[in-house]
This record gives sequence, C-alpha cells and structure tokens, in this order.
Amino acid sequence: MTTSTASTSPGTGQSPEELFAEVCRQARSAARLASVEALLGWDEQTYLPPHGGGYRAEQAAALAELVHHARTDPAHGERIVRLADGPLGRSGPPEVAGTIRLLRRDFDKHARLPARLVGELAKTSVEAQQAWRAARAESSWGTFAPWLERMFALKREQAACQLPDRDPYDALMDDYEPDASWRAIATRFDGLRTALVGLVRDCTGAAAKPDATVLERRFPLEAQRRFVHEVAARIGFDFDRGRLDTTTHPFCTTVGPDDCRITTRWDERFLPTALYGVLHEAGHGLYEQGLPRDWFGLPPGEAASLGVHESQSRLWENLVGRSIAFWSWCFPLARQAFPEALADADAEHVQRALMAVKPSFIRVEADEVTYNLHVMLRFDLERAVVQGTLPVADLREAWNDRFERDFGLRPPSDAEGVLQDVHWAAGLIGYFPTYTVGNIFAAQLMHAAEGAMPGLDRDIAAGRFAGLLDWLRREVHAHGRLLGSERLVERATGGPVSEEWLVASLRRRYGAAHGL
Amino acid sequence: MTTSTASTSPGTGQSPEELFAEVCRQARSAARLASVEALLGWDEQTYLPPHGGGYRAEQAAALAELVHHARTDPAHGERIVRLADGPLGRSGPPEVAGTIRLLRRDFDKHARLPARLVGELAKTSVEAQQAWRAARAESSWGTFAPWLERMFALKREQAACQLPDRDPYDALMDDYEPDASWRAIATRFDGLRTALVGLVRDCTGAAAKPDATVLERRFPLEAQRRFVHEVAARIGFDFDRGRLDTTTHPFCTTVGPDDCRITTRWDERFLPTALYGVLHEAGHGLYEQGLPRDWFGLPPGEAASLGVHESQSRLWENLVGRSIAFWSWCFPLARQAFPEALADADAEHVQRALMAVKPSFIRVEADEVTYNLHVMLRFDLERAVVQGTLPVADLREAWNDRFERDFGLRPPSDAEGVLQDVHWAAGLIGYFPTYTVGNIFAAQLMHAAEGAMPGLDRDIAAGRFAGLLDWLRREVHAHGRLLGSERLVERATGGPVSEEWLVASLRRRYGAAHGL
Repeated sequence: MTTSTASTSPGTGQSPEELFAEVCRQARSAARLASVEALLGWDEQTYLPPHGGGYRAEQAAALAELVHHARTDPAHGERIVRLADGPLGRSGPPEVAGTIRLLRRDFDKHARLPARLVGELAKTSVEAQQAWRAARAESSWGTFAPWLERMFALKREQAACQLPDRDPYDALMDDYEPDASWRAIATRFDGLRTALVGLVRDCTGAAAKPDATVLERRFPLEAQRRFVHEVAARIGFDFDRGRLDTTTHPFCTTVGPDDCRITTRWDERFLPTALYGVLHEAGHGLYEQGLPRDWFGLPPGEAASLGVHESQSRLWENLVGRSIAFWSWCFPLARQAFPEALADADAEHVQRALMAVKPSFIRVEADEVTYNLHVMLRFDLERAVVQGTLPVADLREAWNDRFERDFGLRPPSDAEGVLQDVHWAAGLIGYFPTYTVGNIFAAQLMHAAEGAMPGLDRDIAAGRFAGLLDWLRREVHAHGRLLGSERLVERATGGPVSEEWLVASLRRRYGAAHGL
Repeated sequence: MTTSTASTSPGTGQSPEELFAEVCRQARSAARLASVEALLGWDEQTYLPPHGGGYRAEQAAALAELVHHARTDPAHGERIVRLADGPLGRSGPPEVAGTIRLLRRDFDKHARLPARLVGELAKTSVEAQQAWRAARAESSWGTFAPWLERMFALKREQAACQLPDRDPYDALMDDYEPDASWRAIATRFDGLRTALVGLVRDCTGAAAKPDATVLERRFPLEAQRRFVHEVAARIGFDFDRGRLDTTTHPFCTTVGPDDCRITTRWDERFLPTALYGVLHEAGHGLYEQGLPRDWFGLPPGEAASLGVHESQSRLWENLVGRSIAFWSWCFPLARQAFPEALADADAEHVQRALMAVKPSFIRVEADEVTYNLHVMLRFDLERAVVQGTLPVADLREAWNDRFERDFGLRPPSDAEGVLQDVHWAAGLIGYFPTYTVGNIFAAQLMHAAEGAMPGLDRDIAAGRFAGLLDWLRREVHAHGRLLGSERLVERATGGPVSEEWLVASLRRRYGAAHGL
C-alpha cells in the first residue's frame, strides 16, 4: 500500500494504536463467528437428533461463508498492511508486532484462496467423506479412488494459490504446522523409523511380554464416568470452563475462552478406551485453557501448531498417564471405582499391562510404539502424491507394500488399509505428520521438565500435577502462536528439536516393561 | 416503490417466479442464522460450562445482529415490494400470495425499528434481567422499578415505530399474537374471570377435595426419565427429529426442520413436575414437527401465533394428559416404572390427585383453574402501564391489591408478587395474554376434535393418539402462519372464538373431581 492509498482510505486519521484496536476488533469478530461454527460441529457429534444432519450442513456452510467473508474483507486487509508498514508493525512491543505479522500472514493466505476454490473444497470434502464411508463399508477402493483424485487435485491448486513459492506439500502442511519443511521432518522421521523397527522387533520377540488381560475385565460405565472425570479434574482440567461428553471419535474443541469441550468413548470391557481418550483430550484441553485468555481470538491466544497441540495431549496421555508414578497415585482411585475388576491387581500390574506392543492394521488402535510407523507411512505416501511422484491410482498397492515392509503384515482388506482414515477424504492432507511431530515435541518437553523439576516423579506419584502444568503453562501455553513451534520447543528445552528424546523415552519405558 | 425504481434495480429481468424464489432464498437464509441463534440459546440452558456465559452473550449478540441485518436488507425489501405489487402478490396461488403478504409485513416491522432501538432493547433486556435476578433474590421492588420504567419506555417507543396507527398495547401484542386486539381479548377474559372466581370458590369449598399425596411419594429419577420419554414418544413426539434434555425452566426450541428440542425438570418427590413439563413441551414440539417441512424458514412453515402454540401444549398437557382416558392407558406404564410408589394406587386415584385446586402466589406453580387468573392480572396491569394509566411506580401496590381481590390473599413478599416473572425484564410485554388465549383455543379445538371423532376417548384409553394428532396436523399444523390465529381456530372448529368452551371444560372436569 502506498501512502497515497492510505491517505484516501477511511480511518487514516487514526493513531497506530487505534488502528491496531480496530484490526483486533475485526479479527476477534471473525473468531467469534468461527467459535459458533465450532459449537455447530460439537453439537453435531454429541446431541444432534438422528435426522438433523442435512440442515446442520446448511447451517455450518452458512457460518463458514460468514467467517471466510469476515477474514478476507479487503478493508480489513488494507488496515493490516498499513499497520504492518507502520511503527507498531516495524518496532512495536513483541506481542503487538507479532500479532500484526501473523494477522497479515493469515489474511494473505485466506485472501489468496479464490471463493470458487473455497466452495469446491468444502463441497468435495462433504461428498468425498460420504463416498469414503460407503467405500470403507464395502472395502471398495475402486469407488473411492476418483474422489481422492479430485481432492488431491484441489489441494494442489490450493497450495499453488496460497504459497506459490513453497514446495506444494510444505504449503499444505503450513495450515497445520506453520513454516514446517518436509525435508527436516523426513530426516527426523528416518532416524525414528530405524529405531522403532528395532524396538518393535525386540518387544515382540521378548520372552516376558506384558499381559493386558487385567484391563479387559468388567468396568461398569457409571463408575468409569466418575473415575475419568475425577482424573481429568485432578490433572488440572477446569470443569468450570469446560465439559466432557460422549462421541464415537474423541476430540477437543474450543467454543469460547471459558468453554473448552472434550469427548471420549466407552468400553465396559476395556478400561483404557475411555481413560486414555480422556487423558489425551484433556491434554489438548489443558493447552486451550492455558492460552492467554485476554488474547482469545488473536494469535497470542492461539495454539502454536497442531504438532505442539499434539505434544500436550501425548505428554499427558503417554508420558504421564502410562508411567509407574502416575499409577502409584491413580491405582487406589481406580480400585475404589472398580473394586471387583481390580481386586487382585496392583499399580505395577496395571501399568505394565498398558505397555503391550503389537503390530496391527488400524492406526487409531495402535500402541504407542507402532503408532508412529503408521503416521510415517501416510506422510511418505501423501507427500509422493502431492509432489507428483505417485499417482492416486497406485496408492493402494503402495500402501500395502509399504505396510508389509514396516509391519511384516499385509492388510487383508482396504478397510484395514488405505481406506481406514477419513483425513484425505476431508481434505486434511499434510495433517498426518503432526501426530508424530507432536510425539517428538512431547518427549523433548518432558525430558526438559524432568530436568527442571527433579522431584517430578514423586509429585506425580502423590497426585500433585500442578508443578508440571505450571511449567507447561509458562514454557508452552503462555506464548500462544507468537514463537512458532520449533522455536517454542527449542526455547523451552534449551536444544534443537530432535527425535532422539522420543527414541530414548520409548526404549527406556518399553524396554523395562519387556525385560529388555 | 415506483416502476422506475424497479426498472433500475438489479434483477428486474427476472420473472415473478424467479423473483419469488430469490426472496424466499434470502428469507430462508435469515431463518437459518436465526436457527443457529436458537442453538446458542438451547446450549446456554443445557450444557454451557458455568463460566461460559460472558462469551456466549457476545456470540448471541453477533448472531442477532447478523439476523437483523439479513432481515432488513433494503434490496430484499425492495424485491418484496416489487413482488407484492406484481401478479404473484396480487393473485398468485394462496400459499405464494400469503407468503409474500407476510414477508412484507415482517420486513416492514423489522425495518421500521431503528438499529439504535434494537441495540438498546437488547442491552436493556440483558441488564434488566440481571437487575431482576438480584432484586428477586432480595425481594426488593425498589431497585428493580427503575429498570422496568426504562424497559416500558423502550417498548412504547418500539410500538410507536412499528405500528404507529395501532393502540400501543395491540402493537406490542402483535409480536406474539399478530393482529390481536386487547378489547376483544378483554371481553373474553372478563367472562372467563367471573366463571373462574366462582369455580375456584366452589372447588376450595367442596367437601370432598382431591388428595394429591399419591403424587408426592418417591419416584426414582432414572425410572422417571424412561417413563416420560416413552410417554412423549407414544403421543407422537419424533425422537429422530428431536430430543429431550434437562433445564431449570422447561422450554421447546426449534434448531432446524428435523431438530426440535424440548426440556423438562425433575423432582423425585413429585411426579407431575417432569411428566407435565414433558407433556406441555412435547405439545409444542408436536406442533413444530407438524408444520410443513418444505416451507421451513418461511411463513407457511411457521407457527400461527404464540396463542396457537400454547393451545397445542395445553391440549396435550391438560385436556389429554389429565383425563381419565389418558390415565386408563398410562397407569399400567406408570406402575411398571414406579412399582413401589404406585403399589396401592389405580388410574382413578392418580387422575383425581392431579385435579387439586388451590390459590397460590406463583403462576408457574398454579393449578389449571387458578392459572388463568394469574395471567389476567398481568394482562390488565401491563396494559395499563403501556397505555399510560398506571405509573410503573404504582405497579407493586396495584399487583397486591388486585391479587387480594382475585385470590383472597395478599402476597407476603415482592418475590412472591410483582417480581416473580422474568417477562417484563426481558422486554416480553404483551406476551402474557397468549397463555390464556392458548387455553381458550385449546378447549375450543378439543371440543371440535371430540365432535369430529366420537371414539376419541376410547382411542386415548387404548394409547392410540394418532387420530387426534392427525386431526391437529390437518386442522392446525398444516396451515402454518397463513390463516392467522383466530381464523385458524374458527375454521377448525366451525364457530367464533369464545371462552365458553374453556369455562365448560373446567367446570365439567373440576366439578366432577370435586363432587360438585
């Protein structure tokens, strides 16, 4: 924008501070509409009557259009550019300058997406998900492949519009892990894969394997509800500012600064289903509840990335929730809740049962060790399609070959193979790697937290989680989106991001459980 | 609008049918946003976390502004005028011409309200409700009176803007009971009051009064939940297109054409609380579910008035739900649900217990007979304030004097008197009469239904409700808002609207229960 444009724009009499306030007001107003969209999505998964889906799709589309409209208002964009070129953008306080920089980044990405493409992506996503559901039910790759072809084409177009100077896969990942580079991630993943393949071999070949049967007894659902609610509250999830409901697929969504909603599913015959669903989602929820409340709807009040988000859920789910320290505290609570099922068990018994490792076909049912192999497979395959080296038509064979190489098994059906996840149908391409990036961040953060708090294990064993949560609030949550994920983790841990902490953590914990 | 305006407007090349389709599209789009507002309100009452209220108010205000904006878009108004002046408006098919007429009526009312007044009403409503809650808790009329002063002033201003040619109280009632005239209502209410005062005297003086203690035994909540769900489903509420939840104050709200949500409250020691809450709200729900689905968001798909809405809830709650025929069917179900509480009871016993009449201070706890006296008191007082013959400052004394005259009791506190209802604080002035108008419509409709279906009592006693529901669907629900409430009831019943059916119904049913 030139000065002459600025001088003819409305509001040029404003001081930079007034202009900043106005831009923030409009960004918060778009975020407010997006939060209503979040409520529509939550309600759809929890309480929508069986026949309510058709109109709900219309309501959601209307809100999405309003949000897109508010985010790409040209006058808003012009004000952001004026602000970025002015004193606050160039040398304002870090939070202000950072907010302006990120609002400009967001505006440019949104505005570069033609309205036609936004509409086609939304429509194709709904239709492809319907096609995926039907294809998965019949395990029929052939009927789904054309939809995937179309979705990948649209996503390549999106990448070319939004970030034309970047590698197309990096451009797509940018929606989930801003500024991420596939080369850097691939390097870390390669090191991790080598270590994991070895660890899986060692675990499955171990003489003394963990026995999970204690977790497969009868755990009455009413008692499970009270138990997991208590556990979530004790680790710090604030039920005055959030709630817990039931869905088929657990998730966490934020409907307002004091309204973070998590969900789980229940299995009377397998305690970990609900408990680890809740620990995972409550980990996401603690992050959301810990973001700077006064900046809600603006970058300093937003999560740094999906990788950082996943680091918080995995840290509570796996690094805290599967530890012997955690079960020292949790077991008496569990025995009180399930006196029959756990009559002859103890903390060590339950904790060891949670460490079973077994290659399996379905990602969302995988153990902590093999899980990352599932992710890396998807990362390599979707990247090859986006970069044009793998035709969608060959995706099924490529999946099955790669699965056999990594897991020693060939999927018996497409439903247990290439058709198992909704992500690609929904247009979430470049999303998968954030799961393993989150595991890498989590292990590195936990290592740093243990270094900073030598008594951490004792605290956890005593049910004192506030020290760890405070450390995460200070080192991770308080920074919102201002630092970027890699820089955030490096600052918190004092070293470069590396997969070595995850490898060491898995080796140590799973080695011990398997007597290696 | 002149032809020259029309000829320079965009879209004048459209055929009348295209123009109609475009106007309907925009009206449905505003209704879609209003349905999202309804979800925000439902969620606020059911599942919102304790601290989520502040942001929820911001979300609701944002949606309300978008809805108002969509409804008052001048281009939309211009298209409606062109349509009304064209062939479809003048002599189109009845549904089309009626839709155009009502859209024009709605547009004019909305557009005549200055944005400033919309904002002030919304803001004052929130603040006055907060002041009301505090004042009611302390039973302090003095702190609330100034808020009421302000609210009545704003509502008078609203009346003058929207319908300047009508009596101001009629203008306010028009939001709830379109085209209603206070003179006609007052005439009916006067006849009703005389009869009711006599009936209350007879009932309270009767030698053999109904004994309600069987309803005050222990009714376990889990069993109540299953029982009322079953009853609602059996009378025809479609749980594939709706749901039932728990709130402090029961209500019914529609979130989409296949998404009608009712709520109730529970009392383990008083079965009628939940059961009649559900029968009442399910009555509203049956109306909403019976409106023409294809016209959702347009006048033929909307309720005729609040009075007609209330006629449907009262019909199911009182005229069906308190009848001996209903209990002949319902009692075995109830005894199965509550084997201990109802061990020594039978259908006649429970039904008679439901017919107790006793003057009391609180409207929402009143029996079916005295209820209407509560409503008429509010109707006369609020009308006197709007019409300028009663200063707000004198409202408390006027309330207490009138209450003593009608009920033979003087409220011991303002919380049990003038401060008991939220309506005035919320700006719902002209709303109260629709409760008794609904009772009048209900009795007249039920009389006609009984005439049309001589075996109705036997059907109800056998749990066959489809005949009555089909009659209501055909005579009431199918017409949406096209006929207007009086015309609708007259057409369905073959006679002018009159309070005589309500008087006869109450005399017959309560006379029998009191051995008169």
